[in-house]
Amino acid sequence: MQLSFTSDEIAAIVQARAARGATTLMIEGISALRTARPGDLSFLNQAKYKADVASTHASVVLIPPNYVGEPKANQCLLVVDQPSVALARLCARIESASRPPVVAGLHPTAVVAADARVAASASIGPLCVVESGAQIGERACLQAAVYVGREVTIGEDCQLLPGVRVYAGSEIGRRVRIHANAVIGSDGFGYEFIAGRHEKVPQIGKTVIEDDVEIGAGSTIDRARFGRTVIGEGTKIDNLVQVGHNVIIGRHCILCAQVGISGSATIEDYVVLAGQVGVVGHITIGRGAKVGGGAAVSSDIEAGSSVNGSPAVPLMLERRIAVLKQRLPELFHRVDALEEQLKGLAGAGP
Amino acid sequence: MQLSFTSDEIAAIVQARAARGATTLMIEGISALRTARPGDLSFLNQAKYKADVASTHASVVLIPPNYVGEPKANQCLLVVDQPSVALARLCARIESASRPPVVAGLHPTAVVAADARVAASASIGPLCVVESGAQIGERACLQAAVYVGREVTIGEDCQLLPGVRVYAGSEIGRRVRIHANAVIGSDGFGYEFIAGRHEKVPQIGKTVIEDDVEIGAGSTIDRARFGRTVIGEGTKIDNLVQVGHNVIIGRHCILCAQVGISGSATIEDYVVLAGQVGVVGHITIGRGAKVGGGAAVSSDIEAGSSVNGSPAVPLMLERRIAVLKQRLPELFHRVDALEEQLKGLAGAGP
Amino acid sequence: MQLSFTSDEIAAIVQARAARGATTLMIEGISALRTARPGDLSFLNQAKYKADVASTHASVVLIPPNYVGEPKANQCLLVVDQPSVALARLCARIESASRPPVVAGLHPTAVVAADARVAASASIGPLCVVESGAQIGERACLQAAVYVGREVTIGEDCQLLPGVRVYAGSEIGRRVRIHANAVIGSDGFGYEFIAGRHEKVPQIGKTVIEDDVEIGAGSTIDRARFGRTVIGEGTKIDNLVQVGHNVIIGRHCILCAQVGISGSATIEDYVVLAGQVGVVGHITIGRGAKVGGGAAVSSDIEAGSSVNGSPAVPLMLERRIAVLKQRLPELFHRVDALEEQLKGLAGAGP
Repeated sequence: MQLSFTSDEIAAIVQARAARGATTLMIEGISALRTARPGDLSFLNQAKYKADVASTHASVVLIPPNYVGEPKANQCLLVVDQPSVALARLCARIESASRPPVVAGLHPTAVVAADARVAASASIGPLCVVESGAQIGERACLQAAVYVGREVTIGEDCQLLPGVRVYAGSEIGRRVRIHANAVIGSDGFGYEFIAGRHEKVPQIGKTVIEDDVEIGAGSTIDRARFGRTVIGEGTKIDNLVQVGHNVIIGRHCILCAQVGISGSATIEDYVVLAGQVGVVGHITIGRGAKVGGGAAVSSDIEAGSSVNGSPAVPLMLERRIAVLKQRLPELFHRVDALEEQLKGLAGAGP
Repeated sequence: MQLSFTSDEIAAIVQARAARGATTLMIEGISALRTARPGDLSFLNQAKYKADVASTHASVVLIPPNYVGEPKANQCLLVVDQPSVALARLCARIESASRPPVVAGLHPTAVVAADARVAASASIGPLCVVESGAQIGERACLQAAVYVGREVTIGEDCQLLPGVRVYAGSEIGRRVRIHANAVIGSDGFGYEFIAGRHEKVPQIGKTVIEDDVEIGAGSTIDRARFGRTVIGEGTKIDNLVQVGHNVIIGRHCILCAQVGISGSATIEDYVVLAGQVGVVGHITIGRGAKVGGGAAVSSDIEAGSSVNGSPAVPLMLERRIAVLKQRLPELFHRVDALEEQLKGLAGAGP
Repeated sequence: MQLSFTSDEIAAIVQARAARGATTLMIEGISALRTARPGDLSFLNQAKYKADVASTHASVVLIPPNYVGEPKANQCLLVVDQPSVALARLCARIESASRPPVVAGLHPTAVVAADARVAASASIGPLCVVESGAQIGERACLQAAVYVGREVTIGEDCQLLPGVRVYAGSEIGRRVRIHANAVIGSDGFGYEFIAGRHEKVPQIGKTVIEDDVEIGAGSTIDRARFGRTVIGEGTKIDNLVQVGHNVIIGRHCILCAQVGISGSATIEDYVVLAGQVGVVGHITIGRGAKVGGGAAVSSDIEAGSSVNGSPAVPLMLERRIAVLKQRLPELFHRVDALEEQLKGLAGAGP
């Protein structure tokens, strides 16, 4: 990133309600409160870091309305409703400024089928392949070396980063962002065991990615055996995530890195799966449930619940188990002692 | 998928033994019994869903010979030996009909070394690279953007999907299907720690993929330090699986998504590893053993056994542990109570 | 690999201190002691395999100075300071002999921006893309189908294998080796939850890969939200590893396959993370700490310690827990028995 703003320019971008103090320095970096240097912008995101504002060397600090405190010399505190939102707004501005304009049209090295329908404002970058019957929406950008199979549809304003592979027949909505080397619509993993061999069950369904989804680098989303694998609107998927065939993921879910979801599982809206979670097939994780990192979900999870562990159990129980597990050596000793004592008592009995 | 069949056409494809009832509708979809609509085909795969046949709206239902029940109006029950096999047959038919014919020859944008030996019936798609000394067998298909390194051999009827990378010297058998962005023959992970630095141990062995193997999207199979990493005939590997150097995997194994196998492990024939299983190096998993999802295998596993957990133990023990773990809070309370009581008894003693 | 050496040639390559015995055979393979055949070279790497030297069929065996024993007929024992280092030296020789010379210059199918600065001795292979403002150092090799984004810098003697994707602004040091389909500089995974939707937090930082790093196939290293994600000098990363945004990894660390590190974690120098380890965000793993396979690190780890388990605890405790967990059924029975006995005693009381 390249940035260079006056504090007034930043106040405008983040829609600051008020400014306390002023700085003559240009803001050329962003940093946490403790590591910021003069010329940096910082922010108070969580109340527990409040004390760090007074000692920070940042030249501009985004603070919430309820922060009480005065700036140092040559420092400007900008009051905003939500510092994290304000910061996101600033970052978006920097990002859009540093991103080169998308050039509409087909790069001469792209291989685009004659009957593919590419919108006039779409950008098909170098060494992309777009197969027969595919449709690419307005302002969609295939950055470079992207493969789009037959009859795929890609909606408006999508961004496909280098090396993305989309198998035939997949449907991708609008404003979807797919990171480098992700694979959409690969075969589901299904075989019949016949005469000592695994015979492939053809996977003739499709993958549907709804609007505003983001999919991380290297992730793989299988297509359905028949019917559909669905990633619901607004769901965000991190890197190296595996989604099996016929999985239905609802809207606005969060799947962190290296999550794996087995075939035909249902993940309802607003579910959060932390990193490396594994989900067995054919179960349902209820709306808004949260699953902790590395947990193994092997049965239905109630809506709104928080679970963790292997197998996943309610979070409070899992925490208790985690502590008591470490006291197992002690518990065995205590039971040894009890047995010993009881033997003594029994021997001393009448 | 696109399908449109009469019930008679379907009866012929699935080799039905008998038909009960008839339908005038064209079959244009496939669905589970509960979600099927008129015009869909469905199937009775497991006895526990038997009751759903009577209430399904499917127009054609594949049923096993022992199913007792009559069709509704405008519904056809097709009796087949194994509904799942019959369904697979139908899907295969649909898949082959919808797949475009493979065009033999080199796409003009492919970069193929002058001394590579490409069979006349093979298809080298757009933007593929085939390096010096490589051999590509009859009817093999490199779909697009595939990289085949020096001296690689690829057998007859292989399918390499977009973005597959095959390092120099790898050997791939016949009818092998490798999904998008998988990597075959990458360096094993080996270093010697010398004078405070990790010095690379050159990985000069190869990777051998035997006949009828399938490898999922984004999976990585390292080549051997020296000697070979082997994936045995008929073994099926899901997405994002890691196979380390010098691993020997037998025939007809199943490795589900995100499995990781460390260097020099041996996996014998017919082993099944569920999703996210981890296997340490230099151990053996015996023929036909089954390892449950997320298990950590840290020592040899007996042939034919079923294990689970971290570390993996026999399945029945693991299930018992999983239940008892959740009763640890109770157990601690019981031991507390015992100690209390015993203190009372001892105090009341003679 | 192709090899064919006399024992004298091997003695020279491995800098042998002495030879016992001699062989007339050409050495054409490398194998472990037990599986070696005449014409193979083998080596005694660990004292526990000492007995295998006497029975091996290898024609040349690398032995440490303290090995006592005589060769068989037509066998040569070569005394070296460290057999594993000697073997690495031999392998490096074989590797470099079998590797084709790198051809400097741009392949005609590469797409290189006019203002990219590519060193004269660098090699840009077929179907690579190098964007505007990128710099490629002397003798660096982009093998094929590599994508290098805007303003990326790649140092001297780097090797980028096929399908590597480097996002705009990333900085890669010298002698870095990145394996096929790895992704450097992808977006960090950050959102603000606003009005029921996850709004993207732009990720405007960069990724810095220092000198002598190796990164495995399919691994993904996110760029920072702002500031930097850093992989320290000499660190080695295996396949399918995920490194989140703003993670700082020190020097000479080892990250085995499928490790996942959440955002803003700090991994100090010389840390070893075994396969499938998960690390939560915002914690520190101290210098030289070792984390066992599959462990879930959820809090700071002390420098020099060895931990394992979920959550990770000191190794000796984890081993004890692993054993005692398996004795839980027995423990419950013992407590049942104690309660029963105590009931009897209480009933028999005065």
